[in-house]
Amino acid sequence: MSLDDVLSKIDSDLDAATDRLLELLRIPSVSTDPAYAAHCQEAADWLVRDLASFGVRAEKHDTPGHPMVVGHVEGDGPHVLFYGHYDVQPVDPIELWDRDPFDPALEETPSGKVIRGRGASDDKGQLMTFVEACRAWKAVHGSLPCRITFFFEGEEESGSPSLVPYMQEHAEALKADIALICDTGLFESKTPAIITMLRGLAGAEVTITGPDRDLHSGMYGGLVRNPLHVMSGLIAGLHDETGRVTLEGFYDGVEELSSEVRAQWQALSFDHQSFLADVGQSQQGGEADRTPLEKLWSRPTCEVNGLWGGYTGDGAKTVLPSKAHAKLTFRLVGQQDPEQVVEAFKAYVKENVPSDYTAEFIGEKGAPASQMSTDHPAFEQARKALSDEWPEPAAYIGCGGSIPIAGFFKDILGMDAMLIGFGKDDDQIHSPNEKYDVESFHKGIRSWARILDEMAG
Amino acid sequence: MSLDDVLSKIDSDLDAATDRLLELLRIPSVSTDPAYAAHCQEAADWLVRDLASFGVRAEKHDTPGHPMVVGHVEGDGPHVLFYGHYDVQPVDPIELWDRDPFDPALEETPSGKVIRGRGASDDKGQLMTFVEACRAWKAVHGSLPCRITFFFEGEEESGSPSLVPYMQEHAEALKADIALICDTGLFESKTPAIITMLRGLAGAEVTITGPDRDLHSGMYGGLVRNPLHVMSGLIAGLHDETGRVTLEGFYDGVEELSSEVRAQWQALSFDHQSFLADVGQSQQGGEADRTPLEKLWSRPTCEVNGLWGGYTGDGAKTVLPSKAHAKLTFRLVGQQDPEQVVEAFKAYVKENVPSDYTAEFIGEKGAPASQMSTDHPAFEQARKALSDEWPEPAAYIGCGGSIPIAGFFKDILGMDAMLIGFGKDDDQIHSPNEKYDVESFHKGIRSWARILDEMAG
Repeated sequence: MSLDDVLSKIDSDLDAATDRLLELLRIPSVSTDPAYAAHCQEAADWLVRDLASFGVRAEKHDTPGHPMVVGHVEGDGPHVLFYGHYDVQPVDPIELWDRDPFDPALEETPSGKVIRGRGASDDKGQLMTFVEACRAWKAVHGSLPCRITFFFEGEEESGSPSLVPYMQEHAEALKADIALICDTGLFESKTPAIITMLRGLAGAEVTITGPDRDLHSGMYGGLVRNPLHVMSGLIAGLHDETGRVTLEGFYDGVEELSSEVRAQWQALSFDHQSFLADVGQSQQGGEADRTPLEKLWSRPTCEVNGLWGGYTGDGAKTVLPSKAHAKLTFRLVGQQDPEQVVEAFKAYVKENVPSDYTAEFIGEKGAPASQMSTDHPAFEQARKALSDEWPEPAAYIGCGGSIPIAGFFKDILGMDAMLIGFGKDDDQIHSPNEKYDVESFHKGIRSWARILDEMAG
Repeated sequence: MSLDDVLSKIDSDLDAATDRLLELLRIPSVSTDPAYAAHCQEAADWLVRDLASFGVRAEKHDTPGHPMVVGHVEGDGPHVLFYGHYDVQPVDPIELWDRDPFDPALEETPSGKVIRGRGASDDKGQLMTFVEACRAWKAVHGSLPCRITFFFEGEEESGSPSLVPYMQEHAEALKADIALICDTGLFESKTPAIITMLRGLAGAEVTITGPDRDLHSGMYGGLVRNPLHVMSGLIAGLHDETGRVTLEGFYDGVEELSSEVRAQWQALSFDHQSFLADVGQSQQGGEADRTPLEKLWSRPTCEVNGLWGGYTGDGAKTVLPSKAHAKLTFRLVGQQDPEQVVEAFKAYVKENVPSDYTAEFIGEKGAPASQMSTDHPAFEQARKALSDEWPEPAAYIGCGGSIPIAGFFKDILGMDAMLIGFGKDDDQIHSPNEKYDVESFHKGIRSWARILDEMAG
């Protein structure tokens, strides 16, 4: 059996694959900080060399930001594009790391062996699961079972400014039958997942100004309205007592789950109590009449991400401040329009601040929600392959986060995208002491080999 | 006429008096910053020398903080204690000053000549009005018309930590018939004022914690409650729709104005529209059924002075934060008890945060409101003297701020206190480019000469 040979090769090659990943993790390719620009180039060069080492024609393509890596390899079956990102999050606060984030190592933990270091899970480790699956397949069979385009970017952690222009300019070179994206997680440690629903994102920052300067709270307090009170009232008014967002037209385009998806989600063993307990909470928030998974995956949100004004240092200062600030993001679902949501928020603020206040806004570029059509045969093929590898059958799930690239593949290249990943909730991505379970890495590589095999038919 | 001679002497000595004030202003006696401790000593030494120069037995007394200056001079009439402070506010933000804050100078402005520099108004210039009045009187008559105790502190801008213990320990040396405090302002530029009502102060800082760490707003938003929303709701709930504070028992001890005081205040030409316009506002806040002066002087307030949580840097970060923070102060009137108010606030927070949230508090030491009894004959004497000096009759007014020392004189030394000052609203105290009008300085000195004359009878 050809697949079995590949899986055996993957098992026997695991240590070498881990060493390769450690090598990539040693390159501090932080995309947000210009001081690391040369390291982003270095990571891209490393990937070009690594792909070439098993016969992929790979090139680094410069952009106004960090380079893209694009590689092509022929094969007999369908044409898949695989996407990952080689850039990583900054490491601050560095003092909370137990080791140098760019001196990665294998560590034994009570729940198994892990690869510890910045980018281990997000996204270098995940990206390499696919690369290693291809390498093993090539080693065993001398060729690959699918035609494959590799597409790696280096700006995912800094908003992917070059991605859309690059995709538009190189649409022909990137087109394939389907896109595979490995930047997400398992449903839970035994249950792999294919994400078919991603929330979109819109954002706004607002500054309201009342008095034209900071005032003494004794000399003016009681007569002059306090912008911190006004801002609190605005924020408190964004949700009604049932947890619904009050903005005019906010729920336009929000869709109810199909009975099929509802049934799938009901079948998932999601323990919301332990999900909450894991972050020190015991009570649900959100819309009163929705299930926990709906709240996380298929309902829109309005969240204040930052709020500030007045004196925030040590001790007291009796100031009645001039300004109050808030940063908000909205998670979007269905056909909600990011621009319309931001406009509704602006209108709400303008309508509800006192008439002698001003409100200024900084807009954030938004992206609508993505919903994958699982009609493409690759979905059922991948689901079977994942179910063969893992203890529990794979699930079609939603994702509360926003991964705009899935939408870009659809809109710009006309491709469906499958999001399959092997991260765990405790991987500490974007945080100190990021790790990737060796099991995620190992079974991730094996999963991709199985998926390619299923897709090749 | 002996008073006329003193007033003439004051007029002819104004340039020399201004030079003396400039000398004192050159000493950077910032009390909050330990780097300036030696300059606080220097300012105290300067005052001792200056008092001694016209026959006052003055001494510098060390405290755990900055020193007190106490001086005594005999006289025939009643015994008055005069209080002022020689320390000044920090100068930050220094870049907003048009000159070195400690290189003071006379400047011509469209509204008259001013003395520009840190402490010009708060409180070195005000303090010296009384000193110069005494110097002129002594120069003309060879003695003073009252027995006088001078009492200067150097920690007023840093919360006066040594003041109460010092007053308790030196009660006998400080006792007099009445205390005079020069650290306040005119009612408006033509109308001098005696403050008979000062609001008290209580404060609290609260931190609420929901999830035990910062969360990804996409992965958790919609199910986990956001502490910034909870805090906004708490703050929004502190006032009802009529502007009243909702805390249980908050209005216990709040007193209605006597018909006499109400009539006095109604007679004052307070233009609340221009008061608001001066800070860029046109609409009143506060309790719907109260007059502007009541809101500022005789009604209690609850103000948020600082509010923060989540991500407050540039750009966006999709965080659902663990914590939210607020600093609040309450201005108190009548018999309101600072401790009871803080306890009511704590109870309100505890009752209204979700059951899986925690709330932690940092208490601030509070002080109740002060109300002067104008029965002491010095009040009517001072009112007559001030009315003789200024274009408009002197007014008994309230003050929205909190000047705890008035209460200390009453509680520790059993003395009534009269707060009389010549500052103006545009003096920029605590801000860059602080100034004191030469008219305030000149007429302030003349005012004290008249007051001493009236009190001497």
